[in-house]
Amino acid sequence: MASVVVDVMLKPEILDPQGKAVHGALPRLGFEGVTDVRQGKRFELELDGEVTPQRLDQVRALAATLLSNPVIEDFDIRVED
Amino acid sequence: MASVVVDVMLKPEILDPQGKAVHGALPRLGFEGVTDVRQGKRFELELDGEVTPQRLDQVRALAATLLSNPVIEDFDIRVED
Repeated sequence: MASVVVDVMLKPEILDPQGKAVHGALPRLGFEGVTDVRQGKRFELELDGEVTPQRLDQVRALAATLLSNPVIEDFDIRVED
Repeated sequence: MASVVVDVMLKPEILDPQGKAVHGALPRLGFEGVTDVRQGKRFELELDGEVTPQRLDQVRALAATLLSNPVIEDFDIRVED
Protein backbone atom coordinates (compact mmCIF):
# COMPACT_ATOMS: atom_id res chain seq x y z
CA MET A 1 0.00 0.00 0.00
CA ALA A 2 1.33 3.38 -0.99
CA SER A 3 -0.19 6.81 -0.91
CA VAL A 4 0.36 9.21 -3.79
CA VAL A 5 -0.74 12.84 -3.56
CA VAL A 6 -1.61 14.87 -6.65
CA ASP A 7 -1.87 18.63 -6.12
CA VAL A 8 -3.68 20.52 -8.86
CA MET A 9 -3.40 24.32 -8.94
CA LEU A 10 -4.47 26.90 -11.50
CA LYS A 11 -1.53 28.16 -13.56
CA PRO A 12 -0.11 31.42 -12.14
CA GLU A 13 -1.40 33.47 -15.08
CA ILE A 14 -4.99 32.20 -14.65
CA LEU A 15 -7.29 34.28 -12.47
CA ASP A 16 -8.37 32.42 -9.32
CA PRO A 17 -11.73 33.78 -8.12
CA GLN A 18 -11.97 31.32 -5.20
CA GLY A 19 -8.58 32.36 -3.91
CA LYS A 20 -9.46 36.02 -4.42
CA ALA A 21 -12.67 35.55 -2.41
CA VAL A 22 -10.76 33.99 0.47
CA HIS A 23 -8.14 36.73 0.28
CA GLY A 24 -10.84 39.41 0.36
CA ALA A 25 -12.45 37.88 3.44
CA LEU A 26 -9.26 37.88 5.53
CA PRO A 27 -9.15 41.54 6.64
CA ARG A 28 -12.83 41.38 7.66
CA LEU A 29 -11.92 38.43 9.89
CA GLY A 30 -8.91 40.21 11.35
CA PHE A 31 -6.12 38.41 9.51
CA GLU A 32 -3.39 40.75 8.32
CA GLY A 33 -0.23 40.30 6.27
CA VAL A 34 -1.47 37.77 3.70
CA THR A 35 -0.53 39.07 0.25
CA ASP A 36 -2.11 36.36 -1.92
CA VAL A 37 -4.25 33.24 -1.69
CA ARG A 38 -4.58 30.56 -4.38
CA GLN A 39 -7.01 27.67 -4.08
CA GLY A 40 -6.56 24.31 -5.75
CA LYS A 41 -7.38 20.65 -5.42
CA ARG A 42 -5.62 17.84 -3.63
CA PHE A 43 -6.14 14.17 -4.49
CA GLU A 44 -4.94 11.29 -2.31
CA LEU A 45 -4.64 8.05 -4.26
CA GLU A 46 -4.11 4.74 -2.45
CA LEU A 47 -2.22 2.27 -4.65
CA ASP A 48 -1.95 -1.42 -3.92
CA GLY A 49 1.61 -2.69 -4.01
CA GLU A 50 4.83 -0.79 -4.58
CA VAL A 51 5.25 2.58 -6.27
CA THR A 52 7.40 1.84 -9.31
CA PRO A 53 8.56 4.40 -11.90
CA GLN A 54 6.09 2.77 -14.30
CA ARG A 55 3.18 3.29 -11.92
CA LEU A 56 4.22 6.88 -11.31
CA ASP A 57 4.10 7.39 -15.08
CA GLN A 58 0.58 5.96 -14.98
CA VAL A 59 -0.39 8.39 -12.18
CA ARG A 60 1.16 11.23 -14.21
CA ALA A 61 -1.02 10.32 -17.21
CA LEU A 62 -4.04 10.12 -14.90
CA ALA A 63 -3.29 13.52 -13.39
CA ALA A 64 -2.90 15.06 -16.84
CA THR A 65 -6.18 13.66 -18.18
CA LEU A 66 -8.70 13.02 -15.41
CA LEU A 67 -7.57 15.11 -12.44
CA SER A 68 -6.48 18.33 -14.11
CA ASN A 69 -7.19 20.48 -17.13
CA PRO A 70 -3.71 21.03 -18.61
CA VAL A 71 -4.86 24.16 -20.44
CA ILE A 72 -5.38 26.07 -17.20
CA GLU A 73 -3.92 23.89 -14.41
CA ASP A 74 -0.55 22.56 -13.29
CA PHE A 75 -0.16 19.44 -11.20
CA ASP A 76 2.44 18.09 -8.85
CA ILE A 77 2.81 14.45 -7.81
CA ARG A 78 4.53 13.12 -4.71
CA VAL A 79 4.70 9.84 -2.83
CA GLU A 80 3.74 10.13 0.83
CA ASP A 81 5.46 8.03 3.48
CA MET B 1 7.80 36.48 1.71
CA ALA B 2 6.84 33.02 2.86
CA SER B 3 4.47 30.48 1.42
CA VAL B 4 2.21 28.48 3.71
CA VAL B 5 0.15 25.59 2.40
CA VAL B 6 -3.08 24.51 4.06
CA ASP B 7 -4.45 21.12 2.97
CA VAL B 8 -8.09 20.49 3.83
CA MET B 9 -9.42 16.95 3.53
CA LEU B 10 -12.72 15.38 4.58
CA LYS B 11 -12.36 13.37 7.78
CA PRO B 12 -11.81 9.65 7.03
CA GLU B 13 -15.24 8.69 8.34
CA ILE B 14 -17.03 11.18 6.06
CA LEU B 15 -18.19 9.89 2.68
CA ASP B 16 -16.35 11.58 -0.21
CA PRO B 17 -18.55 11.51 -3.33
CA GLN B 18 -16.03 13.45 -5.47
CA GLY B 19 -13.27 10.99 -4.62
CA LYS B 20 -15.62 8.07 -5.25
CA ALA B 21 -16.53 9.50 -8.68
CA VAL B 22 -12.85 9.77 -9.63
CA HIS B 23 -12.20 6.26 -8.31
CA GLY B 24 -15.12 4.90 -10.31
CA ALA B 25 -13.82 6.49 -13.52
CA LEU B 26 -10.33 4.95 -13.29
CA PRO B 27 -11.06 1.42 -14.62
CA ARG B 28 -12.95 2.87 -17.57
CA LEU B 29 -9.84 4.89 -18.41
CA GLY B 30 -7.57 1.87 -18.03
CA PHE B 31 -5.97 2.68 -14.67
CA GLU B 32 -5.67 -0.38 -12.43
CA GLY B 33 -4.52 -0.91 -8.85
CA VAL B 34 -5.89 2.23 -7.22
CA THR B 35 -7.80 1.15 -4.10
CA ASP B 36 -9.11 4.52 -2.94
CA VAL B 37 -9.26 8.18 -3.95
CA ARG B 38 -10.02 11.12 -1.65
CA GLN B 39 -10.41 14.65 -2.92
CA GLY B 40 -9.77 17.76 -0.87
CA LYS B 41 -8.70 21.37 -1.11
CA ARG B 42 -5.30 22.99 -1.13
CA PHE B 43 -4.73 26.64 -0.24
CA GLU B 44 -1.47 28.48 -0.88
CA LEU B 45 -1.12 31.59 1.30
CA GLU B 46 1.62 34.13 0.62
CA LEU B 47 2.62 35.92 3.82
CA ASP B 48 4.70 39.07 3.91
CA GLY B 49 7.65 38.84 6.25
CA GLU B 50 8.83 35.92 8.31
CA VAL B 51 6.81 32.94 9.46
CA THR B 52 6.82 33.19 13.25
CA PRO B 53 5.10 30.76 15.65
CA GLN B 54 2.59 33.53 16.34
CA ARG B 55 1.74 33.89 12.65
CA LEU B 56 1.42 30.14 12.29
CA ASP B 57 -1.10 30.23 15.15
CA GLN B 58 -2.96 32.88 13.18
CA VAL B 59 -2.94 30.70 10.05
CA ARG B 60 -4.16 27.78 12.18
CA ALA B 61 -7.10 29.87 13.41
CA LEU B 62 -7.80 30.93 9.84
CA ALA B 63 -7.72 27.33 8.60
CA ALA B 64 -10.10 26.25 11.37
CA THR B 65 -12.63 29.01 10.70
CA LEU B 66 -12.53 30.20 7.09
CA LEU B 67 -10.80 27.43 5.12
CA SER B 68 -12.30 24.31 6.66
CA ASN B 69 -15.43 23.06 8.34
CA PRO B 70 -14.06 21.38 11.47
CA VAL B 71 -17.18 19.23 11.83
CA ILE B 72 -16.39 17.24 8.68
CA GLU B 73 -12.87 18.28 7.64
CA ASP B 74 -9.31 18.02 8.93
CA PHE B 75 -6.57 20.40 7.91
CA ASP B 76 -2.80 20.29 7.77
CA ILE B 77 -0.47 23.30 7.65
CA ARG B 78 3.08 23.39 6.37
CA VAL B 79 5.58 26.06 5.44
CA GLU B 80 6.96 25.68 1.91
CA ASP B 81 10.55 26.57 1.06
